[in-house]
Amino acid sequence: MDKINLAQQFDSFAEHWQQHIVGELNGQEVKIAKVKGEFVWHHHDDADEMFFVVKGNLTLQLRDRDVQIGEGEFFIVPRGIEHRPVAAEEVHVMLFEPANTLNTGNVRNERTYEATRA
Amino acid sequence: MDKINLAQQFDSFAEHWQQHIVGELNGQEVKIAKVKGEFVWHHHDDADEMFFVVKGNLTLQLRDRDVQIGEGEFFIVPRGIEHRPVAAEEVHVMLFEPANTLNTGNVRNERTYEATRA
Repeated sequence: MDKINLAQQFDSFAEHWQQHIVGELNGQEVKIAKVKGEFVWHHHDDADEMFFVVKGNLTLQLRDRDVQIGEGEFFIVPRGIEHRPVAAEEVHVMLFEPANTLNTGNVRNERTYEATRA
Repeated sequence: MDKINLAQQFDSFAEHWQQHIVGELNGQEVKIAKVKGEFVWHHHDDADEMFFVVKGNLTLQLRDRDVQIGEGEFFIVPRGIEHRPVAAEEVHVMLFEPANTLNTGNVRNERTYEATRA
């Protein structure tokens, strides 16, 4: 039961698309990731997913539109909705979703990454 | 399903200790509040509560210690643990907790405030 400093947590790793668990509450997890480039299209059958941008500008592609999320902004992708994060430059993202949500959702490929605890 | 800009949301109200719901996912709510002064000691029987500081410095008093939470830092108060937020100057806080969690927990008094939707 210690406080978490996001900047320190982001300094503790470099690899893109890795998810690091920094908090747990009510069956949910708080995760952070550095992202850059294009992810894979995927959805989560049973999880709404919140993308909160801490640094940079994230494009969240949906099948019918793109959502631009800047610092201090967030977007909640409802369960079942296909999405793909894309970032021209590195973005620091904080995620909220149910524990054990897989980063690639319904897809398993080289981008699949089991989240690790900070 | 729109993105949320926290700064805009904080600009939309002024009163301290009001909680405003800005997001809902997986049975949880994302709330924001401006706080200043001393709140009441309380706990939540069935809810872990996350305090994320967007602006300013929050003191979270626990019965055995004080936790200082600055910008970009968060602390999760486990269910059942008594706590009291205190802020010398105005602080902007983002909260994550189960839907319908009462701000004063086990206490009902003049500080009790039913969260409103943004």
